[in-house]
Amino acid sequence: MTARGRKKREAVPQGVVGRLPVYFRYLTDLALMGVDKVSSAQLGEALDFTAAQIRSDLSYFGSFGQQGYGYNVAELLQQVRQILGLDKKHSIVLVGAGNIGKAIGSYGWFRAEGFTIEAIFDIDPHLIGNIHGGCAIRHVDELERYLERHPAEIGVIATPKEAAQAICDVLVAGGVRGIWNFSPAHLDVPDDVIVENIHLTDSLLRLAFRLNERGQNDED
Amino acid sequence: MTARGRKKREAVPQGVVGRLPVYFRYLTDLALMGVDKVSSAQLGEALDFTAAQIRSDLSYFGSFGQQGYGYNVAELLQQVRQILGLDKKHSIVLVGAGNIGKAIGSYGWFRAEGFTIEAIFDIDPHLIGNIHGGCAIRHVDELERYLERHPAEIGVIATPKEAAQAICDVLVAGGVRGIWNFSPAHLDVPDDVIVENIHLTDSLLRLAFRLNERGQNDED
Repeated sequence: MTARGRKKREAVPQGVVGRLPVYFRYLTDLALMGVDKVSSAQLGEALDFTAAQIRSDLSYFGSFGQQGYGYNVAELLQQVRQILGLDKKHSIVLVGAGNIGKAIGSYGWFRAEGFTIEAIFDIDPHLIGNIHGGCAIRHVDELERYLERHPAEIGVIATPKEAAQAICDVLVAGGVRGIWNFSPAHLDVPDDVIVENIHLTDSLLRLAFRLNERGQNDED
Repeated sequence: MTARGRKKREAVPQGVVGRLPVYFRYLTDLALMGVDKVSSAQLGEALDFTAAQIRSDLSYFGSFGQQGYGYNVAELLQQVRQILGLDKKHSIVLVGAGNIGKAIGSYGWFRAEGFTIEAIFDIDPHLIGNIHGGCAIRHVDELERYLERHPAEIGVIATPKEAAQAICDVLVAGGVRGIWNFSPAHLDVPDDVIVENIHLTDSLLRLAFRLNERGQNDED
């Protein structure tokens, strides 16, 4: 880790955090296409941000670019990967082996980037013992004991809403520090646990709202 | 539709749009629990917003509350449903019948709220003809002709990244006005088409970043 990486940083604004994955995806594409250099103007045009915004965002993590030269794609990607913590391994337990859980369990990208699903849990006796993505599905009653022996960093909750908070409590008591929540439940966690939500229904509702809003204005 | 509903409105700020589904979910829970009345202070405490924020958000759509009385849950829910366009039917075509597509196709909530998946398409010959969520899976080559005969409002893209833009173009040419995009692709669409993205990788990257950020500060 560099000296800069170890420095205690101010919390990075949510807007910047939200754009980091966009940079990561685009730089990965550029690297795969064999592109060596990219300017903030080119990045801005591709990503619909201003060049000034891009320079400002990336400056949060040190100064990567050189005036009149642009960014070295491989170096910038390496820095963004480090900022995102992708230079480390992340262990995951997944609770809920329905369609969403299966989709997550079989998503090859996660594994390629160092996210490993170590164990899968469900409550349905018909699923217990099935192998999914290389993991045997275990009964959720074993979750607490499993975490005692195999600490995990991230817990994925892909259960029905009713079960989500109880599962979350077991995960947190078992030492999980980050929750990736696919249930529609609002989860209560201690301050030192991070929750990232994927609320499918909220996303569809936002789409419906914007369609409805547009339709009403079109009718005038 | 009420006179207020027909009035040409200013675009509602993204922040308010983002909170509307949260109101909707919570009011639905209250109604199911048989709660009749709720104050802005109670709503605020449950949702981690200030009471002033809630009054401000809801005032975008007319004045629902009465001073010292609070909101009638059923009426407010009805208004929020109308604002979100849930008083109308929404027809959906789904492209991509992998695990994510299957999860969406089998999500009962959508149907209960008026979102109907009318047809499912995939490119895998082994899937064609299978029934999922009451729909036969069709070959994606039929998508264009299908939309000519059966116009749909929303297209769900649950394909690999490489296929997403081409599918999006067919959907838009076929008259789809809203795209719900589960692929990691950035989609180019005309100005009058709305895209709502679910970027799973971005969400996991944000979680990884925040865990990494916290870990570094903890080490000091």
